[in-house]
Amino acid sequence: MRLSRYYLPLLKETPAEAQIASHRLMLRAGMIRQEGAGIYAWLPLGFRVLKKIEQIVREEQDRAGAVEMLMPTIQSADLWRESGRYDAYGKEMLRITDRADREMLYGPTNEEMITEIFRAGVRSYKDLPKLLYHIQWKFRDEIRPRFGIMRGREFLMKDAYSFDIDETAARKSYNKMFVSYLRTFSRMGLKAIPMRAETGPIGGDLSHEFIILAETGESAVFCDQGLINMAVPPKTTDFEGDLQPVIDQFTSLYAATDEMHDEGEFNSRVKEGDRLSARGIEVGHIFFFGEKYSKPMKAVVAGPDGGEVPVQMGSYGVGVSRLLGAIIEAHHDEAGCKWPTSVAPFHVGLINMRSGDGPCEAVCEKIYAALEAAGVEVLYDDTPARGGEKFARMDLIGLPYQITIGPRGLEAGEAEVKSRADGQKSSIALESVVADIAGKVKAELDYA
Amino acid sequence: MRLSRYYLPLLKETPAEAQIASHRLMLRAGMIRQEGAGIYAWLPLGFRVLKKIEQIVREEQDRAGAVEMLMPTIQSADLWRESGRYDAYGKEMLRITDRADREMLYGPTNEEMITEIFRAGVRSYKDLPKLLYHIQWKFRDEIRPRFGIMRGREFLMKDAYSFDIDETAARKSYNKMFVSYLRTFSRMGLKAIPMRAETGPIGGDLSHEFIILAETGESAVFCDQGLINMAVPPKTTDFEGDLQPVIDQFTSLYAATDEMHDEGEFNSRVKEGDRLSARGIEVGHIFFFGEKYSKPMKAVVAGPDGGEVPVQMGSYGVGVSRLLGAIIEAHHDEAGCKWPTSVAPFHVGLINMRSGDGPCEAVCEKIYAALEAAGVEVLYDDTPARGGEKFARMDLIGLPYQITIGPRGLEAGEAEVKSRADGQKSSIALESVVADIAGKVKAELDYA
Repeated sequence: MRLSRYYLPLLKETPAEAQIASHRLMLRAGMIRQEGAGIYAWLPLGFRVLKKIEQIVREEQDRAGAVEMLMPTIQSADLWRESGRYDAYGKEMLRITDRADREMLYGPTNEEMITEIFRAGVRSYKDLPKLLYHIQWKFRDEIRPRFGIMRGREFLMKDAYSFDIDETAARKSYNKMFVSYLRTFSRMGLKAIPMRAETGPIGGDLSHEFIILAETGESAVFCDQGLINMAVPPKTTDFEGDLQPVIDQFTSLYAATDEMHDEGEFNSRVKEGDRLSARGIEVGHIFFFGEKYSKPMKAVVAGPDGGEVPVQMGSYGVGVSRLLGAIIEAHHDEAGCKWPTSVAPFHVGLINMRSGDGPCEAVCEKIYAALEAAGVEVLYDDTPARGGEKFARMDLIGLPYQITIGPRGLEAGEAEVKSRADGQKSSIALESVVADIAGKVKAELDYA
Repeated sequence: MRLSRYYLPLLKETPAEAQIASHRLMLRAGMIRQEGAGIYAWLPLGFRVLKKIEQIVREEQDRAGAVEMLMPTIQSADLWRESGRYDAYGKEMLRITDRADREMLYGPTNEEMITEIFRAGVRSYKDLPKLLYHIQWKFRDEIRPRFGIMRGREFLMKDAYSFDIDETAARKSYNKMFVSYLRTFSRMGLKAIPMRAETGPIGGDLSHEFIILAETGESAVFCDQGLINMAVPPKTTDFEGDLQPVIDQFTSLYAATDEMHDEGEFNSRVKEGDRLSARGIEVGHIFFFGEKYSKPMKAVVAGPDGGEVPVQMGSYGVGVSRLLGAIIEAHHDEAGCKWPTSVAPFHVGLINMRSGDGPCEAVCEKIYAALEAAGVEVLYDDTPARGGEKFARMDLIGLPYQITIGPRGLEAGEAEVKSRADGQKSSIALESVVADIAGKVKAELDYA
């Protein structure tokens, strides 16, 4: 992409309303624009990251055997009356009346609708298990939206739902999502720690929040240091196999959010040097809730003995748009974002130090075309701005690699390459710069 | 995908409310489910087609130089007051009040918001042209939603917006979208005819609707037969070059919707045998409207002489979700859908005639794995249903190729292959069936 054709409205000043790094940087780097309280437009640069995050979530859901579909944003109030949540949900639900005076709402979540869809199409235990998901915009009318897209009102969420014949089968579905989430966040360069979460009145131990540690996190969390570097299950994991050992390993060490924290247990189970008290950002939540919706909404199947059995359900959420904020909180410095290659808006920033100069332009065009042909995504700064401005801009938007072409380097037959992650600079021969960078990018994408 | 894991709730009966083929088939084939008047959930099979259509639209927008972003579904009423449309829009606008009594709405279109975004970020004519688009759900509170997703209330639309310094430049943007649309619809197996459309008070000739001919079309259209087989511009088209000859060619022959039709002109310009009176489905609309929004909303840039100039704008819509219906109307028979390979939910249906039979299963598993490894998308019917039911199901969902494995064929070392488009059946040696089908699918995808 040529920057001259792109729409990248950077801000020079730090917006006063932005209290945390991710909000500040997303506004300054022209990734988002506020269109209302807690409502944002995704400008081209932010949109690219959002799409990459969404795609990683999708790939890992598919790998775990979940099937994608898409439910509408607008739901009928009657559906929510069936579960009893229409009145219970409170003011966070955005209620709407259409021209025919029908009561509707902008979906804050989809348990009711997916239950309705399931019960219409599945009759027998032989058709189970079913694991369905969608990635759709939700609206929650938060009283105090803040931190940019981290706590917005209109937000993008992946929500999956499982349907099983009994609790043993339901645990298998739960385990699939547990492992899928470990892989999902890891591929984005995040260390997400599964923490025991409240299960509500049904009890049991099948509820976990996935938490990213960050100083600006919304809640206090407590865990064993040992969880930080626990190895994430590989791409080759057999999701139809026994995943329980992975879950046992990740739940063997203490980890709890504020609400579930037990100081006594923390101190007795974790050695003093391994106790970690930090703040965290919730990026995922998995939850088994049994018959909570299937019973009132009559989502039943014929069991092996012919009788009707309400299905055992679970739901599994990932905050897709919120993840952008979480990734920036984990990967940035004073100068700007430092995107992991897997979610970077472009892989490479190509800087022409002297626009209008024949030889510099010719070399840039050649490198630009060759990188794109090799499948590397390039943002080519072909504008007449000065070098200093171009460098600051690239640091701010935080692409993993910067390639700079200038008259001096050209004379020496070299390009300057900078890695944004560690700031290291090196001179690379012009003949090999494309192969070198393409190789690095490919290796990093394969790894993720 | 194994059918046993999939969610494909087929209907045996034709739903009484479905008046046209596409609505009927989408319900019967388990592609959509109605969740309210004009509001649909996209079940897994329908979702896959929707995604493929969206991706073709995206690729052709990108090819034409448009830049993708994403605007939110919920907009503020104040924005629409700036253009004067808040009161003018009428009951089709879904108006919403949030918990803080702010007046909002579910966006039926995005001219106001994109103009607001543009004016905040662009200052000089040097930054023009800009061509931005998004693919987002819209809501129009139609008084009589019908024909399934063809005239729904919540629908997916691609809308692009162009910003230029003068009308000459604006015409170039318009031409890019004109050519992009010809390619977009053609890739989906549709013959879309650009027809002169009403331009409203600003006049001029820069407004075209793209119409698919179909008996069930909502409006009468009139055109010269010669338009049906006019060659669509190739993949290699240079969108920065002069596209005017393409536009001149496609607008050289008579084509008009009901509203713009002039019987006298029709008869004088078109030879009797070439006059086509038919019904049509609108799948795209491109429109130049100059300063209609930039003037009241003060979207101005510094011109070459330093003075402020309101930008010249155009908007360009594609009905993404509606296209599913249009494609089915164009490609179906009594037995079901006949998807063009480019938008088919899967490329191949693999039928095991005898589930539970060792040799049949082993061969199916091998073909399934080999096709998937070759990048072919397969729906593998591994269920215990009978042959007749499996065949009817595959015909209904309409995948381009069916491969059938049964004991008799196995003995002869052959698979039976059926092409859904023409119904032709052939026996192919087991060793070569994967290469044969993968080659056909790849050729069809490359062609599109």
